[in-house]
Amino acid sequence: MSDQDVTTESWPEDAEVIDTISVIRTKRDGGELSDAQIDWVIDRYAAEHRDVVDEQMSALLMAILIRGMSRREIARWTQAMVDTGRRMDFTRLRRDGQQLTTVDKHSTGGVGDKITLPLAPLVASYGVAVPQLSGRGLGHTGGTLDKLESIAGWRADVGPDEMVDQLERVGAVICAAGRDLAPADRRLYALRDVTATVESIPLLASSIMSKKIAEGTGALILDVKFGSGAFLKTEQLSRELAETMVELGESAGVTTRALLTDMNTPLGLTAGNALEVAESVEVLAGGGPDDVVQLTVALAREMLDAAGLGEVDPAVNLANGKAMDVWRAMVAAQGGDPDAPLPVADHTDTVTAEHSGVVVGLDAWDVGIAAWRLGAGRAVPGAAVQAEAGVTIHAKPGDRVRRGDPLFTLHTQTAERFAPARAALRAAVTVGDAPGEPAPLIVDRVTVGA
Amino acid sequence: MSDQDVTTESWPEDAEVIDTISVIRTKRDGGELSDAQIDWVIDRYAAEHRDVVDEQMSALLMAILIRGMSRREIARWTQAMVDTGRRMDFTRLRRDGQQLTTVDKHSTGGVGDKITLPLAPLVASYGVAVPQLSGRGLGHTGGTLDKLESIAGWRADVGPDEMVDQLERVGAVICAAGRDLAPADRRLYALRDVTATVESIPLLASSIMSKKIAEGTGALILDVKFGSGAFLKTEQLSRELAETMVELGESAGVTTRALLTDMNTPLGLTAGNALEVAESVEVLAGGGPDDVVQLTVALAREMLDAAGLGEVDPAVNLANGKAMDVWRAMVAAQGGDPDAPLPVADHTDTVTAEHSGVVVGLDAWDVGIAAWRLGAGRAVPGAAVQAEAGVTIHAKPGDRVRRGDPLFTLHTQTAERFAPARAALRAAVTVGDAPGEPAPLIVDRVTVGA
Repeated sequence: MSDQDVTTESWPEDAEVIDTISVIRTKRDGGELSDAQIDWVIDRYAAEHRDVVDEQMSALLMAILIRGMSRREIARWTQAMVDTGRRMDFTRLRRDGQQLTTVDKHSTGGVGDKITLPLAPLVASYGVAVPQLSGRGLGHTGGTLDKLESIAGWRADVGPDEMVDQLERVGAVICAAGRDLAPADRRLYALRDVTATVESIPLLASSIMSKKIAEGTGALILDVKFGSGAFLKTEQLSRELAETMVELGESAGVTTRALLTDMNTPLGLTAGNALEVAESVEVLAGGGPDDVVQLTVALAREMLDAAGLGEVDPAVNLANGKAMDVWRAMVAAQGGDPDAPLPVADHTDTVTAEHSGVVVGLDAWDVGIAAWRLGAGRAVPGAAVQAEAGVTIHAKPGDRVRRGDPLFTLHTQTAERFAPARAALRAAVTVGDAPGEPAPLIVDRVTVGA
Repeated sequence: MSDQDVTTESWPEDAEVIDTISVIRTKRDGGELSDAQIDWVIDRYAAEHRDVVDEQMSALLMAILIRGMSRREIARWTQAMVDTGRRMDFTRLRRDGQQLTTVDKHSTGGVGDKITLPLAPLVASYGVAVPQLSGRGLGHTGGTLDKLESIAGWRADVGPDEMVDQLERVGAVICAAGRDLAPADRRLYALRDVTATVESIPLLASSIMSKKIAEGTGALILDVKFGSGAFLKTEQLSRELAETMVELGESAGVTTRALLTDMNTPLGLTAGNALEVAESVEVLAGGGPDDVVQLTVALAREMLDAAGLGEVDPAVNLANGKAMDVWRAMVAAQGGDPDAPLPVADHTDTVTAEHSGVVVGLDAWDVGIAAWRLGAGRAVPGAAVQAEAGVTIHAKPGDRVRRGDPLFTLHTQTAERFAPARAALRAAVTVGDAPGEPAPLIVDRVTVGA
């Protein structure tokens, strides 16, 4: 049946349909998209004029994931996404009559990655403005806003004028990104999430960088993670992403540098919202786990260097309390009470060691899944999270444990979540006879032309 | 901004989302889909339960187009599409107490391809039942139903009982396929059309064969075309499609064979609805262009052979009028008047030769586009077509022409269409000094295991 019902897809009387099809076909067949094709497809998709519908964009995204994109295509795609929305402008920030330099940080996400919390006030404590537009968590990695919302009264929504005021007065703001920054990316991101087109270097790089460029920061430091608890599993892929983003940022006039960091092991000793705030406050008080301090200081050094303060030692203001002062002012400026006790879970449970020996592996993915199952994360956008839920880690690689020693404390408001969380942790810890070679946390530094 | 907002796509609490994503990811990464994955994705897509939405299917279709499918995957995909609807059953057809054998033909489509019109009554004239479920045209190739609708009173819609009755009484029926035959294919076809995922051998083969298998024909002869006026441009691709479909048909219990035929030049001397009906009637009257007669007879021989009548010479019933008798009965059974004059265009125009010489090339694509622009075809599904519109060809390859001789007559109800039609024909005819080597019309025959 349907004799001769094959269409040609070449409809000279309907120019708009021709264009969408021809854009998809170009990439499908392994070609390079022209600037005009990229501008057209992003602009029409964002405009919701039905010239480029979700079904068509899905097919194009899959073709991009499989066929790849040249650096030129990625740069143009990123710029086209920036152009779908508003650009912020922080060039007129002033304090005491002096212009303030802005510098921002982005992490590709990992388990226990609370670094933004101590980092933003630390950098601001040296007189650099840090406009940190952040997101909420989805899946096994927590969101910075979710963490801060465990502080009583704190609110993530800060208007543009309020943001400028807070940056001039306090120096740091961590808040939700407005819906008008690169709005095409917001729709693309939701689409990629359901069509298995997230894991594409060009699409990841353009998604992150379009928002950062639209934000208008003067400089940007990227923490690109790899390993079991990261989005990208291999160092090779994270290096490729880092190089792509550094080039994108620099070509858009943003001083951009990246650190490649290991995310096979969780950062610090906590994964969960209030638990991570507490650990961040410890760091700001001059304590906290070594790895969290090390990465906070390293990223701060990069941010300060990018802001022209290469001679400064960022560890100083962690030790002397100046970073803590900015933290308290920043929390208070957004309605939070820095002295309020953090929420504590109604139920806790302990996971103990089955063998004696030395911890040689602690899998970040497993810990992230456990924290998520305990209620710290969400499975679908918009769902509520438990501020109290999460995992406390008692033994990290290199530590000796004896059979029966606690490995993890689990925290939740809903005790039936313990069983699935324990299941996730069944193989999380590897115990050996002797400590292995410690893996470096910061593996490399990626700069333009390097 | 959007710090750490990368999702994992691994949502153990939402099994349905896992499955759609994992199916797409398997094919995206070049793997083979399991039977269970194929059954699941087709069944859920057809059921419109929102487990598999159009955006997800688009991404999967693009992954299939780029990565390909094994023969096992194609067979399972086809069967899954058959299972989304009703299967027809023609095994109880009887005439004079004898069971009737059914045989069907499918063409992948071409310019001037009116072969179904003389072929179905010709084969039926030998006592074989021909249930020819056909479609409407889209793009540059005309649809069989559009052509027949230029006959006054003729209707394409025939119910199942009426179809059985007409097959037992007349022997042939050419009608529209019911909406309940492989309904998943209907949705997939519309989706592929807008997402540049039509040109995939696995998707083309499964689309055609799912409908033919659901139709329940005993045997199937395929006319797989290649060349400028065909959907597939190269012999290699059409051979691959033919081999895939023959194997699919045979493995589903349908005797299936294919001819590979050249569609660089239009078939016959007409492209357009009423024009092609008139030419078909010429063939049924024992005349008509050589190429149309040759292909009609060759396909009839294959159909009769597949029905167990290998010794019959199909040219006989074209010459003695028996095929014409079945044609008249078939048209009348569906409300048409075989004696009614065919509609004639209000406006005609002539395209003449600019040089003297021998025609060495006549491009089928150009002629198809011209006929379409004159009103014979449609740009979007459901649009009306002009029964009267089309192109008459006055010189075919091998013919001598002198400067000023007519090459084409253009027919339309809307004279402003002449200019775009003439533009399409600007380079349609190549005139040389000496005739080239004539290209064979039927290039090969594809059977199972051959």
